[in-house]
Formats: sequence, structure tokens, C-alpha cells
Amino acid sequence: MTSIKNKKIVLTSRPNGEVKTECWKLVHEEINGDIDPGEFIVKIDSISIDPAMRGWINNVESYIPPVQINETMRALGLAVVVDSKHEKFNKGDLLSGMFGVQEYCKLNSDYAIEKIDNTAENINTSIFLSALGMPGMTAYFGLTDVARIKANDTVLISGAAGAVGSIAGQIAKIKGCTVIGIAGGEDKCRYLIEEAGFDDAIDYKSNIDLNEAIAKSCPKGIDVFFDNVGGPTLDAAIKHINHKARITVCGAISQYNAAGLSIHAEIDYIPILFNSARLEGFVVLDYYHRYSEGVKEIVKWMNEGQIKSKEDIRHGIENFGDYFNLLFNGGNFGKLILKP
Amino acid sequence: MTSIKNKKIVLTSRPNGEVKTECWKLVHEEINGDIDPGEFIVKIDSISIDPAMRGWINNVESYIPPVQINETMRALGLAVVVDSKHEKFNKGDLLSGMFGVQEYCKLNSDYAIEKIDNTAENINTSIFLSALGMPGMTAYFGLTDVARIKANDTVLISGAAGAVGSIAGQIAKIKGCTVIGIAGGEDKCRYLIEEAGFDDAIDYKSNIDLNEAIAKSCPKGIDVFFDNVGGPTLDAAIKHINHKARITVCGAISQYNAAGLSIHAEIDYIPILFNSARLEGFVVLDYYHRYSEGVKEIVKWMNEGQIKSKEDIRHGIENFGDYFNLLFNGGNFGKLILKP
Repeated sequence: MTSIKNKKIVLTSRPNGEVKTECWKLVHEEINGDIDPGEFIVKIDSISIDPAMRGWINNVESYIPPVQINETMRALGLAVVVDSKHEKFNKGDLLSGMFGVQEYCKLNSDYAIEKIDNTAENINTSIFLSALGMPGMTAYFGLTDVARIKANDTVLISGAAGAVGSIAGQIAKIKGCTVIGIAGGEDKCRYLIEEAGFDDAIDYKSNIDLNEAIAKSCPKGIDVFFDNVGGPTLDAAIKHINHKARITVCGAISQYNAAGLSIHAEIDYIPILFNSARLEGFVVLDYYHRYSEGVKEIVKWMNEGQIKSKEDIRHGIENFGDYFNLLFNGGNFGKLILKP
Repeated sequence: MTSIKNKKIVLTSRPNGEVKTECWKLVHEEINGDIDPGEFIVKIDSISIDPAMRGWINNVESYIPPVQINETMRALGLAVVVDSKHEKFNKGDLLSGMFGVQEYCKLNSDYAIEKIDNTAENINTSIFLSALGMPGMTAYFGLTDVARIKANDTVLISGAAGAVGSIAGQIAKIKGCTVIGIAGGEDKCRYLIEEAGFDDAIDYKSNIDLNEAIAKSCPKGIDVFFDNVGGPTLDAAIKHINHKARITVCGAISQYNAAGLSIHAEIDYIPILFNSARLEGFVVLDYYHRYSEGVKEIVKWMNEGQIKSKEDIRHGIENFGDYFNLLFNGGNFGKLILKP
């Protein structure tokens, strides 16, 4: 095989606060098309753009090392094998893994790479980055295992029109809960109620007091708060929790662009004490060994028409910097996916 | 029986912040000594002085209604039956219940009153208000059930020389944990290490930075934080939690005298998210149905010499107001008990 023209996005400098597009650079390169035993080359089909990526570009050790300057930006994605001398992978296989923000990738390890069975008809591959991927698993295990939802719970969800929140709300409805979503804008709120089956939606971009809006939408108080937004949104929700409430802290997207490397966000925790309630942080990687359980359930619900997955698909790897910022200004509607 | 001279403490006004002694009044009264069927009279032996009482005198509904103005102050205590026409209680029985801050009490209901078996030799009855009472149960269920301690955990305890904290530390040692206490003053810290078997103690009244002191005493980080103090102490501890840490929020005594009726205390919760950790509020009343399990374990450990209970016994009902404030200025050393 001759060489392959690749386009990729590399990190050129670390952001302080909002990630300016100058932090990214589009690089053209040639990949040697010859492969040795154990190697394989994939063509990337879809790139997942996720809030967690904001943490990966800070120079801070977390559950994963930071992306280095001039390194290809890390990203989860779906890719098709175009050539392989790896024993596990054959040409044409669809894989999920950390292939980065680029068009092609040559690899020699199967670490954290999964083969995807996409033999089902009429299925859009992007579903494996949304309802059947990390966002779906986050929603499923965050509600069932961390929050332990049960029928008749009042479940409040922030970032409700996002990749995780919209699946979470639909799962909570299936489980017999009353579900209220917080989202930005009339379109998203209408979608939550009319399409995703939420009982009510709070438009945080309208001229409302969030505290009053929660009181009005959750007259019986909150049993479960599934929080993707954090900061003031969490602080407002805590004021309305019931006895034995469970708060699943899944993310804090409102805080990720905080200037400086260390994120702080203050909440008044006293209602947690007085209500014998629980606040629990949660990283879906802790449930990696149980993904098949979550996938099986969600596939069943999708086949029954009980769960709809909404993707926001964008095109052109050169626009990655702009697309990434959509996550933080509420510009995406559904799971944000980049087709390179 | 002729009339009985009773002395009791009533609430005369609601405090704003620190509870001035003017909020209390000593009242002399005569109790009619005649009893109808179903009634019984007790002489109060010991009165438990607890942080939770601060909440009961605010005009706020919580898990229990507020004490009303001119009402006898509510208090848990031990009492001996002096006369009875109640089918369950006989003269001489030792009872625990909410008998109030007074010398005598005439009752017609057995609601939340338990008969105590005090036939064991050499046992000081006050133990039923400390290690075998509410503080002991709080320590036991807070660690075993809420925090789910396991061997080799690093356990940090605030209010460590208090009624709950000192028992909690000893239970954690029995369970194979490394235990660090936070307490006020050299005497208390020496007691924790030399008498109660803690591995280390932090004197918050010495000229230290709590954040640095915790880092030094917990070089492997905190797996369990058992918090009786709250506010800035909790905020400091959270900075040092490990992956999957559990924070049992048992009280917030640093905040109970906050001016105004509603208590607020802010913490930076982000480390809970990033460590997949858990913060859980806890009221021991939720475990009332399981007390016998906790009592059985603690009696066994006491008989084996593995748990020592320390009581701070004060005398004279007329001094209740001064004794009560000891809880908030760190003036008591061990479970605070009033002999009327």
C-alpha cells in the first residue's frame, strides 16, 4: 500500500479558560501505508466530541494523562479497518476506540479497542457513540447503579438535551419516574417534552430564577438529581431534595472552562445532611466491565421504540475547534459527532 | 402519693446565633402525684446534652417539631420509674426516652421509651447515653453501614474527642483502619492517641493550617471522612480524598450557631466528582430498628476492653444553659451528661 494522506488536529497550546481556536492546528501528514505484523490501519468514520476532552488538555494528571503539546488531540471514535496484519482485526471491521481527531490512524495495539457488531439493519453507526456508547452507558449506570432510581421518584436532569441527559430522562421514564429536564432554549425544551417524553422542562436561558423554576416543576421535591452541569445548577437543585435523595454528579460542564488549571465549585451541602441524602461522583469507566449489560437493555428499549437517540452530526475536521466550543455554549443539540 | 416538687428548664425565647443563658428559665412546679391507669412517673437520672438540641429550638420543622416557647426543653435521658399504673413499666425500671431537662416527669405513653436492662455489674448507667446510646449507635452505623469501612482504610474523624467521634475512632481501629482524629487542645489529642488508640491527632486549636495538617497526617489520602464538625473542616478534608472515598456527614456543629434560622455551609465538591467519591448525610434515627445489632457489637468490644467510653458528667439542672454551650466552644471532653 502506498502512503496515506492524513489530516489531523493537534494541540498547539494549553487554554486558560475558554478554548480559543488558536489552541488547535490542522496538520497534513503522510502515513506510511506499509504495515508490519501486528499493525493495522483504520479510516475514522465518526469522532465523538465530549466534555471530558476539556480536562484532557489541562496539564493535570487525572484518570488519564494529559494530551501533550503538538500531540494529536485524543478522541473516542468509530473507525473501519482498511488494512490489517493484527490477529484480531480484519479489513472492513468496525471498531470503537481512542483514534483521535484525524482521518486515518495506524496502530499496533488493541488496548481499549472494541469490535462492533453492526450487522443490524437500518442502524446508523453513530448510535455506537451515543445511546449505545459512552453517553448511553453513563445514563444507564448513573441512574440504575449510582442513583438507584425506582418507580415514582421525581428525577431532575441537568444538561437534559445533551447526549447523556436525553438518554437518562428516557430511561427514568421507562422506570416509572416523573422526569424534569433543565435545558437551554425553547427548541430543546419542546424536544424534551414532545419527543423524549419528559414530564416538564426548565429553560435556563429564559428569564427565570432557577430556584423558583425547580420548586414549581418539582412540587413534591427531588428524589434523584442527575447532574451534568454543576456549580450554581447543583446548588439550586440541592435546596429541593427530599429525604434520602440521591445526587449523581456525572459532570460539571459549567465549570470546565474555569480559568486556571484547578476547578472549584461551591455548593451549600447542609440539605444533604438534614435529608440523609447522598451526593456521588461517577466516572463511566468504572463500569467498563459491565457495558454489555447496559447495551443489552438499551438495544431492547430502542427496538421497542422507548428510547430515541439524537445526534448532532457536524462535518469537516478543520472546524473541530468551533465544534468543540458548542459543548460549552449550549450550541449542540444531541450527541455531538464529527465526521472528518 | 402526694405532690412532687419538680424543677425544669423551659425555653423562654428563640436564640439568634449563640444560645444566651437568658433563653432558658428554671421553673419550679408541683406535679400531682396521683396517677390514673396508664400513667407513670419517672425520676430523671441523667440528661443527654447533644448538638442536635440546637436545631430543636429553631422555629423550623425538621425530622422533629421545634420546642415551643415556655415548653420544657426536650432532651434524651435515663430515668427510673417511681410509680406506675402503666402495663409495661414497674417501679424501679430504668428507662431511656425523651424525658426533657427536668427532675421528674409524668407520662401516659410509651412512645419511643425503651426499658434498659441494667443488671450487668459494674456498669455506670451513663453508658446508655454514650457508647450504648445514641452516640455509640451513630458511630457504629455511620462507619459500618454508611461509610462501609474496611481494613486498611485511612479514616479521618472530626470532633474526634466528642461523644460520637471517640467511639467511631475506636471502632475503626478494631476494623483494621488507620485512624486520625481532629480535636481541640493538647489534652484531647493526647487522649485520642494514648487512651483511644488513634494513630494520630490534629489539634485544630494549635496554630496550624488544617489543610497542611491533614496532608501530613494522611500521606496516603483519606478513604473515609467521618464528619461531625462541617463547614471549613469538611472543605479542607475533601481536598485530600482518595478514589471512591466515602464522607459520612454526621453533623455540622461548627455551623449550628449560625445567626438566623437557616444553616448554610459551602464546600468545593469538585474532588467528589473527580474521585468518584460519595458524601452522605446520616441521622441515626434511620437506624432505630437496628439498634440491638449495634448494642450487641459494642457491648462485646467493651467487655473485651477494646472500646472505652468517656463521659463528661456535670451537675445541677440550673446550670443547663452554661453546660449546653460547652458543646459549641469545645468545653466538654467526652459525652456531655447532666445529672439534675
